[in-house]
Amino acid sequence: MAGANDERYRDRTRERLLFAANTIVTKEGLGALQARRVSQDAECSIGTLYNIFGDIHGLILQTNAHTLQELGAVLVTAARRASDADLETRLNTLAVAYLDFATVNQLRWRAVFEHRLPDARTLDESYVEDRRRLLALIETQLEPAIEDPQARADAAHALFASVHGIVLLSLDAKLGPFDPAECERRVRFVVGHVVVGLNKAKPRSQS
Amino acid sequence: MAGANDERYRDRTRERLLFAANTIVTKEGLGALQARRVSQDAECSIGTLYNIFGDIHGLILQTNAHTLQELGAVLVTAARRASDADLETRLNTLAVAYLDFATVNQLRWRAVFEHRLPDARTLDESYVEDRRRLLALIETQLEPAIEDPQARADAAHALFASVHGIVLLSLDAKLGPFDPAECERRVRFVVGHVVVGLNKAKPRSQS
Repeated sequence: MAGANDERYRDRTRERLLFAANTIVTKEGLGALQARRVSQDAECSIGTLYNIFGDIHGLILQTNAHTLQELGAVLVTAARRASDADLETRLNTLAVAYLDFATVNQLRWRAVFEHRLPDARTLDESYVEDRRRLLALIETQLEPAIEDPQARADAAHALFASVHGIVLLSLDAKLGPFDPAECERRVRFVVGHVVVGLNKAKPRSQS
Repeated sequence: MAGANDERYRDRTRERLLFAANTIVTKEGLGALQARRVSQDAECSIGTLYNIFGDIHGLILQTNAHTLQELGAVLVTAARRASDADLETRLNTLAVAYLDFATVNQLRWRAVFEHRLPDARTLDESYVEDRRRLLALIETQLEPAIEDPQARADAAHALFASVHGIVLLSLDAKLGPFDPAECERRVRFVVGHVVVGLNKAKPRSQS
């Protein structure tokens, strides 16, 4: 019985820690996420935090995984909504959904990309899987246009990173003041022209 | 005479502060750039640093401007080398030069994009001008392909941000372990397809 209680206490504490971490990252960003503060907010000791997550990076990865999963759910919904449209529309729907998610969940979204894992540490399998699922969503769209799986994966990575770069530099006002309409125009420019390029490089049997 | 000496002392101190700041950012990154340390390295007081640069952000902006100018020189040289080639080759030459610059000068390059200006503060005119010159380099390449100046500026911004996103996520190993060849392949995929898209959207009289 004591074992089962311990297990339940651990699960509840784990949930409280993740909730506290997510709240801090959402409101103040990754820079504010310190072990002492999270454990205080979750009403446990720092030792318990380390016991459950290994170290602060374990907690950050779990918090970021949560953000990736939410982003994934948003993108899956967007992809479903556009599933009957042409390739350009489908990719643009995903790209604009990404822009919106980043804009609304800015600090949480930044945390995913700002976090640097120490060299000695590797990503959890489940995190790599969450990331793979996100990229697979783009790859699936490209399936009729690019036959070779390696080329398709490359294209999906390139498109994701391009849209990410446009969204990031826009939100950071790095090329000029942030202008959502301008940002969307730039995303659509790249997606649209790449799709025209793809269609020209390999004409599809039916359009 | 005292005035002229003051002026000379100020100029020399300014140079020493910029040198010290650049050294710290090059070796340890923006996070290590603290007013106390820079002024110690430059053998002046913190008060003198603030007197010359206004605040730490003034010093960071000048340090980043230096990096932008170096990047600009590298890109101008690359553009000149490829000036007789077709649009795809010219843009790819610029993109790969950007990838190389970012790889070799990683911490300095990151500092340009990591630095956040406080809301109340605006960028110096000269910084905005350095940035404009960099983007104008891409715009110039696009001149025969895109007639409308606004559309051309948008396209240049979109291409720059796309290449930046691919380089950044690759160096950060955010989509998988860093692989320079893979990164270059992705850059060339986006640039190449966008150019095909541009050529198709607006056929040029002579190719």
